Amino acid sequence: MRIAIDAMGGDDAPKEIIAGALESIELLDESDEVILVGPKEVVESHLPSSLKSQAATISVVHAPEVIEMDEAPIESLRKKVKSSIAVLSKLAKRGQTDAVISAGNTGACVAAFQMRMRNLPGVNRPGIAVVFPTFEGPVTICDVGANIACKPMNLYQYAVMASLYSKCLLGIENPRVGLMSIGSEDAKGNEVVKKARELMKSDSDLNFIGNIEGRDIFRGVCDVAICEGFVGNVVLKLTEGLVDGLFKAIKHELLKEKLLLVMKFKPVMKRIYKKYDYNEYGGAPLLGINGTALICHGASKSRTIRNAILAAKKYHTKKINDKIVEHLSHSPFSEALQNGNLQKTT
Amino acid sequence: MRIAIDAMGGDDAPKEIIAGALESIELLDESDEVILVGPKEVVESHLPSSLKSQAATISVVHAPEVIEMDEAPIESLRKKVKSSIAVLSKLAKRGQTDAVISAGNTGACVAAFQMRMRNLPGVNRPGIAVVFPTFEGPVTICDVGANIACKPMNLYQYAVMASLYSKCLLGIENPRVGLMSIGSEDAKGNEVVKKARELMKSDSDLNFIGNIEGRDIFRGVCDVAICEGFVGNVVLKLTEGLVDGLFKAIKHELLKEKLLLVMKFKPVMKRIYKKYDYNEYGGAPLLGINGTALICHGASKSRTIRNAILAAKKYHTKKINDKIVEHLSHSPFSEALQNGNLQKTT
Repeated sequence: MRIAIDAMGGDDAPKEIIAGALESIELLDESDEVILVGPKEVVESHLPSSLKSQAATISVVHAPEVIEMDEAPIESLRKKVKSSIAVLSKLAKRGQTDAVISAGNTGACVAAFQMRMRNLPGVNRPGIAVVFPTFEGPVTICDVGANIACKPMNLYQYAVMASLYSKCLLGIENPRVGLMSIGSEDAKGNEVVKKARELMKSDSDLNFIGNIEGRDIFRGVCDVAICEGFVGNVVLKLTEGLVDGLFKAIKHELLKEKLLLVMKFKPVMKRIYKKYDYNEYGGAPLLGINGTALICHGASKSRTIRNAILAAKKYHTKKINDKIVEHLSHSPFSEALQNGNLQKTT
Repeated sequence: MRIAIDAMGGDDAPKEIIAGALESIELLDESDEVILVGPKEVVESHLPSSLKSQAATISVVHAPEVIEMDEAPIESLRKKVKSSIAVLSKLAKRGQTDAVISAGNTGACVAAFQMRMRNLPGVNRPGIAVVFPTFEGPVTICDVGANIACKPMNLYQYAVMASLYSKCLLGIENPRVGLMSIGSEDAKGNEVVKKARELMKSDSDLNFIGNIEGRDIFRGVCDVAICEGFVGNVVLKLTEGLVDGLFKAIKHELLKEKLLLVMKFKPVMKRIYKKYDYNEYGGAPLLGINGTALICHGASKSRTIRNAILAAKKYHTKKINDKIVEHLSHSPFSEALQNGNLQKTT
């Protein structure tokens, strides 16, 4: 399998990205190939002169331009046609790679992948799924920022896709799907949520448990949480900030105690950080795209990238996309979707 | 000052509510009066036979019906005209109380208070403001659930109101106001957020710092965070669930260590809980209502209620509503608002 990765995307690119790629090839098969996309000279300067012969192949595809993290997605793609993200998506389009990975500008990735790779049949808009490691087990949240103007049908499709992802990639047998709202009762929520609930309810192949609230993500209530991209993005970043803030507060309070206590608490903190670390899950798949595309956190370290590469292989091997297409083609709305009726109204 | 409180609202009503009211009268002035609203017999059975003579007065207003926490707001208000929430709002309407407080059904409270007390001049929709105690100081978030179909003008008004609340009630001199979005750049966010940003920018009396992201709430970036009610409600409940989940994880890890370490960590946890406990701030004001209305968490304990009563007094005394009306009447949009032009389009 060929996996192409944006060597220039992320706060610590290209160093950490290339380090992650090098870590991964030891864990891949000999027949696998990792393709680093970026300015050839820069990328090659980070590669060792020789690699172990048993490992997967590593190769470089030249892309002289870089889209910065804070650039406007569409505009930057138009201006920088030779950027690593643009080249990455073209490789996928031409069938020269089986998967794409980037820790760069998320908006640019979503736009480029969607434009070049197109959507899976039956999918109107792709969504980014992130796995939250919680005390009660991993919870997959979709969408966390690809689509900030969600229609009910988008949310329904996210439910189908994230559910299959949770099943095939995380091994959760019959994932419980919750719809993020502001109260567990049926009557609660905005209009989009109310309509989405009806769509999810009418698909008996979905283990839909109804509305969930923000707090339920960490309470073992569901395995999959569905929300529109704006809400999901706030959830993702709030969680990040809150965990950091809370550990800061704990540290501050501990420092008032004896130093010995601080020292003793350190390994406990480390274990928690490791256990509930999103880096373990590598990248977040862009579900609904016709291919395998993973988007990684801007702060990705080599470990994140290594895990993302392994996750991309698993995603591809488990044929998750085939299962999504299969499910959607048998959904109660498949005919209406094919005729293009439903997507206009819902 | 007269403060009326829903004796039957909340998971632990009437016990904790009445206990909180009793705690508060020791801290109020002799001229103050706390009015308990609920079924007379039930409420009186929780009151002691005699009260200290120096304390504020406590009285009971009969309301035989109770709206349950999970009832549909509008419907329940229509059916239960003698419910404590309905009676509470009528007392305010008739000028028989200066403030209302409830830990009951939030939707019913918002609907009843808005219907009976009406909005402040210049305010289109009231919003609930909650104070998050963070490591970097208190952050006021508005709206957390009163208005789930926000228009840009609603968000602008929340910014003005929450800013004045932060200044007058929390003593923050020139509160930095952030607008919750999914990226700090101007171009990021949905259409409502983009338009709201323009409105906020054009008011030079507002210390508007631009877009913020979920993580910024806990990073000392802003004193006030503005978002629509759906997002704010998810933020509120997610925070609750995440803090609980994280402490659970810490406890679980600590139990693998020596018992002595668990014992030693306990007071640290307790201090953190106390310091970052929303109960300290009592209730959340319904900003924009023509009066003083506080909504408390359903899980309120006597301490929460006591603090909410004291907060209601402070809100009233500081004349926050006068300041809101004053600010809005001089805002760049005051004329358009008076003519009813702006509120239709934005």
